[in-house]
Amino acid sequence: MNKKFFTVGPTELFPEVAEMYKGAAAEGFFSVSHRSKEFEEINEETVNSLTTLLSIPEDFYVFFLSSATECMERIIENTVEKKSFHFINGYFAERFYNIAVQLKKEAGFVRADFGGGFDFEAADVPNDAEIICITHNETSTGTALPLDDIYELKKRNPDKIIALDVVTSVPYYPLDFNFIDTAFFSVQKGFGLPPGLGVMICRKSLIEKTKYLLARNINIGTYNNFIKLAANADKNQTTMTPNIPSIFLLGKISDLLIEKGIDNVRSETDKKANLIYGFFDKHDSIKPFVKDTALRSKTTIVLETELDVMKVLEKIEYNGFVLSKGYGDFKSRHIRIGNFPVHRQEDVSNLIYLFRKF
Amino acid sequence: MNKKFFTVGPTELFPEVAEMYKGAAAEGFFSVSHRSKEFEEINEETVNSLTTLLSIPEDFYVFFLSSATECMERIIENTVEKKSFHFINGYFAERFYNIAVQLKKEAGFVRADFGGGFDFEAADVPNDAEIICITHNETSTGTALPLDDIYELKKRNPDKIIALDVVTSVPYYPLDFNFIDTAFFSVQKGFGLPPGLGVMICRKSLIEKTKYLLARNINIGTYNNFIKLAANADKNQTTMTPNIPSIFLLGKISDLLIEKGIDNVRSETDKKANLIYGFFDKHDSIKPFVKDTALRSKTTIVLETELDVMKVLEKIEYNGFVLSKGYGDFKSRHIRIGNFPVHRQEDVSNLIYLFRKF
Repeated sequence: MNKKFFTVGPTELFPEVAEMYKGAAAEGFFSVSHRSKEFEEINEETVNSLTTLLSIPEDFYVFFLSSATECMERIIENTVEKKSFHFINGYFAERFYNIAVQLKKEAGFVRADFGGGFDFEAADVPNDAEIICITHNETSTGTALPLDDIYELKKRNPDKIIALDVVTSVPYYPLDFNFIDTAFFSVQKGFGLPPGLGVMICRKSLIEKTKYLLARNINIGTYNNFIKLAANADKNQTTMTPNIPSIFLLGKISDLLIEKGIDNVRSETDKKANLIYGFFDKHDSIKPFVKDTALRSKTTIVLETELDVMKVLEKIEYNGFVLSKGYGDFKSRHIRIGNFPVHRQEDVSNLIYLFRKF
Repeated sequence: MNKKFFTVGPTELFPEVAEMYKGAAAEGFFSVSHRSKEFEEINEETVNSLTTLLSIPEDFYVFFLSSATECMERIIENTVEKKSFHFINGYFAERFYNIAVQLKKEAGFVRADFGGGFDFEAADVPNDAEIICITHNETSTGTALPLDDIYELKKRNPDKIIALDVVTSVPYYPLDFNFIDTAFFSVQKGFGLPPGLGVMICRKSLIEKTKYLLARNINIGTYNNFIKLAANADKNQTTMTPNIPSIFLLGKISDLLIEKGIDNVRSETDKKANLIYGFFDKHDSIKPFVKDTALRSKTTIVLETELDVMKVLEKIEYNGFVLSKGYGDFKSRHIRIGNFPVHRQEDVSNLIYLFRKF
């Protein structure tokens, strides 16, 4: 195939992935029991590497689940008795909200235009909301909410759990876990890995809320409830036989990014984002969708156009680059470009050159 | 490492796995969107191969989930309003039961000695039980229940859903889906793959029960409820971004087994099982745990001993073979040996030679 995937995830893989996989398979790492010392070491190394890379404090767990969508379900099940509250400005925020509704919670929300942000101070968060769910970087629209606004919201609501969808945020956006209670992502975005693993970073004290719910006979789920997840994480184990290859590879790619230097990764991401936004800001027929530059995501760049999107994407793909089409109702009007650590500046320049040529 | 994993799963990988992975990664298969035509083709090919290999009828869905444990949870959530019934003769059957209890169902059961079977005709299945949950091959004890007994049970209870845990049964044991409504497994057992994928085979008509539950405002789960799973399976898609490498590899390994001929795979499994049971039946200090030969599993062979199990396993591992220790309370008294299609007869002979030597 030999195409470059500048998609918003699943995306291009780090070129090291296949060899890492092969080496680990030969070592028997994918054949060991998930209750063995060998697996505990793999688990521990990945948690340590991720903790270093993302500056995760000691009073947080790292749980391995199957997808970010599962994380949404488990968070609502394990932390909400009655009321959740959602900031909705895109399809993934809406998914989080829908999951709360499906789980029979009273889910309140404030809604912004898709592609827009919020006046967080003016937002009417009910006093009895137990959790506030926010999608930091909306992969569907290319909006990144200012993290400081979220931290201020937590300061005004210290008793409420802040749950942050950072699916396409990490590792580029630095998170301050003083003001976040749980955050989750999947590995096929910013970590340049194949899909199949969800990662939940979770303040240890949240387990007390789960225990409270259990004592009140509320359904907290079964094998992946927070009590079981925590008890297993304490032993560097998982609740069930997990996706061992993905856990292993996440650790190795985290090491690779640590070695590269996260500051370098971040400044490269900035440069690549500036190149892309700079080019399309001046483009005749394809423009950035998010108008407020303060809200423009650096990792998932969404463009709008009146051209035939499928034709544009086909032409680009024919020349070696795969991009994402729009999400949901934006399918035929948007083009989405992934700008993750795996994407090289040289390739970004080549991609822009292609758009310039057409 | 270069050890042979004769463990009950995770187990030895087919030697082709790493190269298959590498080739698919290079083709971009792990970078494609799970809503793309490319993924739909991968999904369809795997479903077709599995359908051929396991003789799955047309009126069944194949759903991809994250683990067999998740399958248990989703089955109870999506098919039971009030009452489930469980045949418990090992730890995995007990897990299925516990999940029903955690989901607030009235879970009835009949219990046999771990390592024993049931008098199915005498079993007192309540008239109003909606589902009967059975672990066909108990990985914890090495017991395989006679499939004909299960089929007769279905004939006597045509209105009840038969849910069969076949985690370590397939592809060796041929299943007759005329008498099974749903069966599930994970790929790190009989398919010689790394862990990270649960597969649920599900009669299409079960979705009607889920719709009935939904109409009665019963919690059927969220993104992985049967309605969503079915709607996506109809399009050869999944509910969320799945473990694409595992879905891809499952298809390729199924093809490999089809090529080898499932009858050959089965007769080889029989031969290897006979070698192992034959040897330990005559062994002084290590004996098959399951006394009733009609109940002895061909795929997961459990031995009991008064020797120091950890020392025996260490000695065997030092000589190149990794075996599983006992499960739960049997930890220090049992040795478990995986006998899957991936395990070669030559290696079985070498393993037996080792035991003979000591």
